[in-house]
Amino acid sequence: MNDTRDKAGLTAIFEPRSIAVVGASSDPQKTGGRPIHMLLKHGFKGDVFPVNPKADEVQGLKAYPSLDDLPEVPDLVLILVPGAAAVSVLERAAALGVGSAIVLSAGFAENGAEGQVLQAQVTALAETSGMRIVGPNCLGAVSVANCAIGTFSIALEKEMPRAGGISIASQSGNIGSVTLAGLCREGAGIARFIATGNEADVQAADAVDWMADDEATRVILLVLETCRDGARLIRALAKARSAGKPVVVMKIGTSEAGQKAALSHTGGLAGSDRVFDAVFERYGAVRVQSIEDLVQVGVALEAMGARRIGTDPSAAMVAASGGFGVMMADAAAANGVAVNALAEDTQDRIKARLPLASAVNPIDATAQMSASPEILEHLVDAALADPNNSTVCLMLAMGMGLPRLRAVYTEALRKVSAAHPNKALVAIIGGPQDAIADLRAMGIVCFPTIDATMRGIAALATAGALRDVGAEQVEEIAPAPLPAGAARNEATAKAALKAAGLPFPEEIVVTTAQDAAQAVAQIGGKVAMKILSPDIQHKSDIGGVELGVSGEENARAAFNRLITAAELHAPNARLDGVLVAPMSSQGTELILGTTQDATFGPVVMVGLGGVFTEVFEDTALALAPVTVEQAERMVRSLRAFALLDGARGRPKADLATLTQAIVALSRFAVTHAEEVAEIDINPLLVRGVGNGAVALDALIVPRQTEAEEAAQ
Amino acid sequence: MNDTRDKAGLTAIFEPRSIAVVGASSDPQKTGGRPIHMLLKHGFKGDVFPVNPKADEVQGLKAYPSLDDLPEVPDLVLILVPGAAAVSVLERAAALGVGSAIVLSAGFAENGAEGQVLQAQVTALAETSGMRIVGPNCLGAVSVANCAIGTFSIALEKEMPRAGGISIASQSGNIGSVTLAGLCREGAGIARFIATGNEADVQAADAVDWMADDEATRVILLVLETCRDGARLIRALAKARSAGKPVVVMKIGTSEAGQKAALSHTGGLAGSDRVFDAVFERYGAVRVQSIEDLVQVGVALEAMGARRIGTDPSAAMVAASGGFGVMMADAAAANGVAVNALAEDTQDRIKARLPLASAVNPIDATAQMSASPEILEHLVDAALADPNNSTVCLMLAMGMGLPRLRAVYTEALRKVSAAHPNKALVAIIGGPQDAIADLRAMGIVCFPTIDATMRGIAALATAGALRDVGAEQVEEIAPAPLPAGAARNEATAKAALKAAGLPFPEEIVVTTAQDAAQAVAQIGGKVAMKILSPDIQHKSDIGGVELGVSGEENARAAFNRLITAAELHAPNARLDGVLVAPMSSQGTELILGTTQDATFGPVVMVGLGGVFTEVFEDTALALAPVTVEQAERMVRSLRAFALLDGARGRPKADLATLTQAIVALSRFAVTHAEEVAEIDINPLLVRGVGNGAVALDALIVPRQTEAEEAAQ
Repeated sequence: MNDTRDKAGLTAIFEPRSIAVVGASSDPQKTGGRPIHMLLKHGFKGDVFPVNPKADEVQGLKAYPSLDDLPEVPDLVLILVPGAAAVSVLERAAALGVGSAIVLSAGFAENGAEGQVLQAQVTALAETSGMRIVGPNCLGAVSVANCAIGTFSIALEKEMPRAGGISIASQSGNIGSVTLAGLCREGAGIARFIATGNEADVQAADAVDWMADDEATRVILLVLETCRDGARLIRALAKARSAGKPVVVMKIGTSEAGQKAALSHTGGLAGSDRVFDAVFERYGAVRVQSIEDLVQVGVALEAMGARRIGTDPSAAMVAASGGFGVMMADAAAANGVAVNALAEDTQDRIKARLPLASAVNPIDATAQMSASPEILEHLVDAALADPNNSTVCLMLAMGMGLPRLRAVYTEALRKVSAAHPNKALVAIIGGPQDAIADLRAMGIVCFPTIDATMRGIAALATAGALRDVGAEQVEEIAPAPLPAGAARNEATAKAALKAAGLPFPEEIVVTTAQDAAQAVAQIGGKVAMKILSPDIQHKSDIGGVELGVSGEENARAAFNRLITAAELHAPNARLDGVLVAPMSSQGTELILGTTQDATFGPVVMVGLGGVFTEVFEDTALALAPVTVEQAERMVRSLRAFALLDGARGRPKADLATLTQAIVALSRFAVTHAEEVAEIDINPLLVRGVGNGAVALDALIVPRQTEAEEAAQ
Repeated sequence: MNDTRDKAGLTAIFEPRSIAVVGASSDPQKTGGRPIHMLLKHGFKGDVFPVNPKADEVQGLKAYPSLDDLPEVPDLVLILVPGAAAVSVLERAAALGVGSAIVLSAGFAENGAEGQVLQAQVTALAETSGMRIVGPNCLGAVSVANCAIGTFSIALEKEMPRAGGISIASQSGNIGSVTLAGLCREGAGIARFIATGNEADVQAADAVDWMADDEATRVILLVLETCRDGARLIRALAKARSAGKPVVVMKIGTSEAGQKAALSHTGGLAGSDRVFDAVFERYGAVRVQSIEDLVQVGVALEAMGARRIGTDPSAAMVAASGGFGVMMADAAAANGVAVNALAEDTQDRIKARLPLASAVNPIDATAQMSASPEILEHLVDAALADPNNSTVCLMLAMGMGLPRLRAVYTEALRKVSAAHPNKALVAIIGGPQDAIADLRAMGIVCFPTIDATMRGIAALATAGALRDVGAEQVEEIAPAPLPAGAARNEATAKAALKAAGLPFPEEIVVTTAQDAAQAVAQIGGKVAMKILSPDIQHKSDIGGVELGVSGEENARAAFNRLITAAELHAPNARLDGVLVAPMSSQGTELILGTTQDATFGPVVMVGLGGVFTEVFEDTALALAPVTVEQAERMVRSLRAFALLDGARGRPKADLATLTQAIVALSRFAVTHAEEVAEIDINPLLVRGVGNGAVALDALIVPRQTEAEEAAQ
């Protein structure tokens, strides 16, 4: 895709000099009338051309029978006529050289087979003409400062939002619309809004990409139902991060029930929700789980500007009630926000004003805070100066609702906030809305409830960490062909993975009973013997595994039993011989694996084996490739990590070997992504520090070729 | 405590005919002036007597120098003078025969040692005089219908709440006050409010007890920081349940950080939060985790009246957007609300109106819902009739904000709600508030956000289940003395527990090497031999355990080694001999135990052993005694229950034996609660169905006598 086309096309959507509305209605309540009504009401400065063959005038504007009749080629065409008629309009627009179009009307992929054909025409038209097309079946786009309104959303029916730095890119029109309404209720300043709907051409990721360059945008809110192009999303997120613009993302369809609903709704695969987490972590988007949090975190990021919440968040807390302090501490614990003991100096400052206070964290300002409101200034100032906590959290409950207290509190907070320009002050305040606006204007972060506050602090800390670290360089790994036959059987898979650096022991493939006896003697001790065949998946089910074999005689007998079993139970299987491998059982059992995510490509996974994986689903995953640091983060994120870290008197596990194995596997998966669908290494036995690890089994599942897929 | 005194005293608090205010101020802004200001402003019908030796008149009312000068003995005295002065007033009030007092002023237990002495005087005075005292250091009480205002809370400064059926009992004044303000914002009807503060006499539980009998109260909201008297709380909850009045409880201090904060704040032990869960489950309170949920669930219970949400909640969902449907399904999954497939008949009814809809659950009403609002009635009616889902959840997003849609939607919902009087209809609606009030008046449950809705449905389902089941009969178990010496050593502990029905094998105590040899021969196979002494806690640390012993000669040698080790490493220990026990290793390793909760008494615990307990903290607990059904619920609630239920090819565990063991242990703990602090049975090996279980180790920790505690 051509970057110039991208950019110009989306610029025409957000900053059109002229807008044609096809399917324009004189009724300002109808979908066909609402865009013109709002463009006129809110004062769009450019030209608006209603197109309607049945009217001479629409809402006081001269109307035109068709696009061809317009006095000039418009920058943007809004299309409100449905299905096939919309496609005809798009074709004319493209022929006229229109820069961009928004198809608000439905009747496409959401509407059965016939609609899918129409939508494919839209996609093809965008690709061949270079015209950028938003939708179809979407809520369109809005740009606030210039009042460019390309939507019929009722969110703008009453008034235009305040112009500001928050931009919204949402697939879902309704969720985007409710997010916008929520931001407006909070008095937030909005830059751009786009809802991409069916995404025949423009995807939400394209909008993020454009917003990353947009001067008006400082914070990006992204709503995803699915992702149609992983590479595009990754590129857009990386760009926003480089531009220093935080992206707050709400990805829906987190549960099985939700994904089922999404499937029936979008007709697309939702993709693994956990892989999205890995994408957001790697490319630096802050994930939230509700529209309310999306709004609140967005507003907070805009309000706090360059202030910092600390990347490992901790809060000195101030409340006028011990009960609130307890609730704040509970909510902090639930969201990973530490409540560190106050430094001695901080305690002294508190006791100077509240001699009976215990000067612990949370700080109980007692009812004296409302009786002598100047205490607030003293306490919050002391808390902001506390070196042990990265931020300050102040419960304002109902005080700001009383004019008497509000004046004193606001003035006090203005002073302390100005005195600590680098530290963030977070207030818990339910209202009134104009008092909140005053606080936000001073750079004070406001959240409406205790829980929202602690979730918010955690999210802001993540955003801060992402900003501090900057864009992570993901190493480019050149693709290479898989060694011939590597996926054929266990021995070939192990050989390929061993060559890539995975810790497999020396094993021997034999094809005669005599060679088997020699191999057992060579390896020594007890061995495992397994039938090798590309056609036998579950070896033990057909008697294809012999464990604990020792001695040459036993080896010969075992070999013969294995061959007989295979011939009996899998008469058509191609036999590649028998694998002779040393037995091993020492160490903690882990599993390693890779899969191919349909959207984002190779993913690497690690988990503790056995019940931990199957009952507790205790696994960690990341996009491949991973660095050693990323691999270690994965291992440490396992709930059962304590078992590798010396719990219950075990030796500490050899993490260096384990993380190296994860790194090597992830690189192998990327190198051979064209040919490998899945790799399973199970078990990997990890021993104590310095004693390494050994993998006992491996499977490489090749990708199906298109021919194979078609044949099924 | 005398029940009549309880009842009359609290009645005087909520329904006083006359109120004296000691420390009355002429300034309606000050704490001493606010109660009188509000009593006059909101129209309290009884007499108000300001007491202030320095004024003849307060806010237009005749003032009196002291309680003794009043024209009559008031029903209720509000005390606003601090500390020692408050105690003097209480003494005069008690002498005059005043029924009840509220000490709003501070200067007591929260205020250091001196204050603690004063508070003890208040407690003693309440007990000797029979006068009920609320506080000190509290926010007092309010009764709405009669405008009896015994508080200076700013929550009532502007206006009085609407009279209705919701009552609030809170320890924390501030949290109670914010809860009250939240209810008022929702337009909820309030009956009573009380904040009990330091609880020198009246506890929140006493208020719940009184509200259970109160005709005006239909729903009780309870806020607990701690519980000073477990039996009182249990009695109150049981009474409310018998009266059919749901209790919604928010207990704070759920986290370690929160409990630390609570400790410094209330000076009291917070008690194990998990034990509170067990209390609420047993005695039927619905627990919520935030003030917002407390308010919303309270209002919902009041709005839905006799309608039912279903005890195993499932919801047919309707939204005008697929994206909202996905979010609703996600939130449902996170809160245990099922999204069952619609019945065929329901699907047919939906397709009759939306031929292109896929008629799955969630139902996507598409933009047609706002274009043709009558579709809403059809879809919601079909959803309410769906036999596969116990309730219906409707996303109203922003539609009700538009007068045009609001009128049609409201009428449609009135019809369908009336047509299904037994089923609950739950609407997700953020505003406007008067539209919400209209819906609630029709019995429609409203929640402001998707997440709040699904948490709310889960809470309402719990409330419904509690109502359906009715009060659980907790068996009275007579206390009995512990068999003499039962706590002395492992053998005596096992013998006592075996007699109580716990599955211990036959074991033999020996005191000579010769007896040891005989015992080993008698038991047969391999045995474990352990030193027995009341003075040796960790036997293996001193070489006091020999495992896998077989044969008479080895038995003799092992016996001698054990005695020698004990004499060497614990020369002063009293030796009771050596325990000879059969070795056992088959089965899944569990642990059973009991502890004594300081507030609620004996608690029984079960968990999977080893890493499951130590790393995953996967245990379940309940108040003792438990029934077989309760024991089974405990076992099934373990995250690792799958391991007992046939996961990974294991045999299904003998649950009957396991639950019997839990029941027996819980009864033993109650029977001997006076003498036993703690019991540990670890491990208990549970085998496959029909093969029982065997416990291998046991420890009974006796309670310290008061003399022993004093000696430490």
